[in-house]
Amino acid sequence: MFFEGSEKKIEVIVTPGCGSLRELGKAFWTEMVASANAEILSSISNEKCDAYLLSESSLFVWHDRFLMLTCGTTNLANAALRFIEQIGSDNIAFASYQRKNEYLSHLQSSAFADDLERIRARLPGNAYRIGHLDSHHHYIYTSSKPFQAAADDVTSELLMYHIRGEAADYLRAENQSAAEIRRLLTLDAMLPGFEFDDFLFEPFGYSINGICGERYMTIHITPQENSSYVSFETNLPLEGEHAQLFARLLAILNPGSWDVIGFNSGCNTQGFPAHLCLGSCALQTEQGYNIDFSHYQQLCHEVLIPEPM
Amino acid sequence: MFFEGSEKKIEVIVTPGCGSLRELGKAFWTEMVASANAEILSSISNEKCDAYLLSESSLFVWHDRFLMLTCGTTNLANAALRFIEQIGSDNIAFASYQRKNEYLSHLQSSAFADDLERIRARLPGNAYRIGHLDSHHHYIYTSSKPFQAAADDVTSELLMYHIRGEAADYLRAENQSAAEIRRLLTLDAMLPGFEFDDFLFEPFGYSINGICGERYMTIHITPQENSSYVSFETNLPLEGEHAQLFARLLAILNPGSWDVIGFNSGCNTQGFPAHLCLGSCALQTEQGYNIDFSHYQQLCHEVLIPEPM
Repeated sequence: MFFEGSEKKIEVIVTPGCGSLRELGKAFWTEMVASANAEILSSISNEKCDAYLLSESSLFVWHDRFLMLTCGTTNLANAALRFIEQIGSDNIAFASYQRKNEYLSHLQSSAFADDLERIRARLPGNAYRIGHLDSHHHYIYTSSKPFQAAADDVTSELLMYHIRGEAADYLRAENQSAAEIRRLLTLDAMLPGFEFDDFLFEPFGYSINGICGERYMTIHITPQENSSYVSFETNLPLEGEHAQLFARLLAILNPGSWDVIGFNSGCNTQGFPAHLCLGSCALQTEQGYNIDFSHYQQLCHEVLIPEPM
Repeated sequence: MFFEGSEKKIEVIVTPGCGSLRELGKAFWTEMVASANAEILSSISNEKCDAYLLSESSLFVWHDRFLMLTCGTTNLANAALRFIEQIGSDNIAFASYQRKNEYLSHLQSSAFADDLERIRARLPGNAYRIGHLDSHHHYIYTSSKPFQAAADDVTSELLMYHIRGEAADYLRAENQSAAEIRRLLTLDAMLPGFEFDDFLFEPFGYSINGICGERYMTIHITPQENSSYVSFETNLPLEGEHAQLFARLLAILNPGSWDVIGFNSGCNTQGFPAHLCLGSCALQTEQGYNIDFSHYQQLCHEVLIPEPM
């Protein structure tokens, strides 16, 4: 019943002379997704973005950039290399590649260091591990070409572990419905104006993409007891009506621990459950991204249940 | 510079009719150690016990039992299977096999589940994972034969991560000496009456075995910055003059986090640095072992330094 929810993530921004990535067409993206060992399940589009829901996570394509997240045992580095090969590294303005440490890293087809070696051979860049190896940690590569991030180029990620409570119980139960999960997550209330596309996996697991103009959100839920994981990611600024997005999700899913990763993100801890921030890191890149990583733990002692093997 | 300090551990008690394990002789143990991909560096003996210092950790042999710990990328399951094959499973009264989660589990030659499958095929038993996969966790197998642990069969383990401060700095420095490390650890004061055998590795790393009658202690130090690990283990009751052993080591090595594992151990948290016990578990086995596992974190926020890759 184990499923590795943690995602690998690549984001690529192309140069103005490259042409629109959306015009590459669905066949191009279908093949790229297949090269990572995933497939496209459905898609939605608006004037700014094509959002593909994948068998393992999501792909968002804008005119000048794409973002691809894949979980499970997919090999996202394959897709990244395929893209670089087909588009040409000269047409790439900026690229980043991230991996969160997995629950069971030995089941992965590659380690971050392997992926890094292959990507760097095509596109030089800097890479870091943030966080201790024996705790939650995050790997990030960014290309080293001259580039300047736009002021509104923000990303905020909330990665939740060991979800508990009513919503968690429902997500693990039989006879779920996508509509009820959307209701539990209060998505319509939190994200008015978004168009959604979701998928309920068997026997459980849930993914949803949402787009609103050039803004996106995506949630992927791996509810399995003892290895549950829920990721939320958006390029919405977390201010005004969206200032409490993270706090609301934390209240609903009640995770034992969680990570917040921001790229020029204004995310704050207002409304978070009582917690200890075990560690945090701020990293500035030459391209103008301020990357923040923080690992939080609910401020309580947990009685651990032995897991028979 | 990375070295995996976390140990795998096997303990076997043989039946009264089996004969003395000490009489199997050094050649037998040399070959068993070699089958795990380690070698014997030195040894000390007293009337009760032979203590071998290994290239990767330690082996203790008593008349009716042995305990072997190996770290790095050794394959201790190979040694366990070799022992079972040579002695015969009928001659084994009790066996346990443990693994702490590694810093870099994908570099290991096997996962605990692989080891378990091989050992169980020869010697049926129960196995558990204690602790979440994304935090410190511990795997333990115990044989399921009828057996009753003796009242004085106690073991206490203190596993320390991310050591800091003066002693940690010395352990990472050039021109160390074994005598100075023993002094820093205050071993003579903490363990009067023990005979010691130690080894300083190049460029650093330190191991020490100590015996006093049938009591043993062993310390293994992997001081590498960002992946430091120090293990202390003993079958001394942690009471009377030894009640503060763990607290003293924690004060000297100042780890950011630590685990305590006990088998019928009276270990307590008196004198521990200010901490949060993130999780704990008590497991009783039919053979009369009360196994306790607790994971502690210093009660402070840590500024994480990005590690270039």
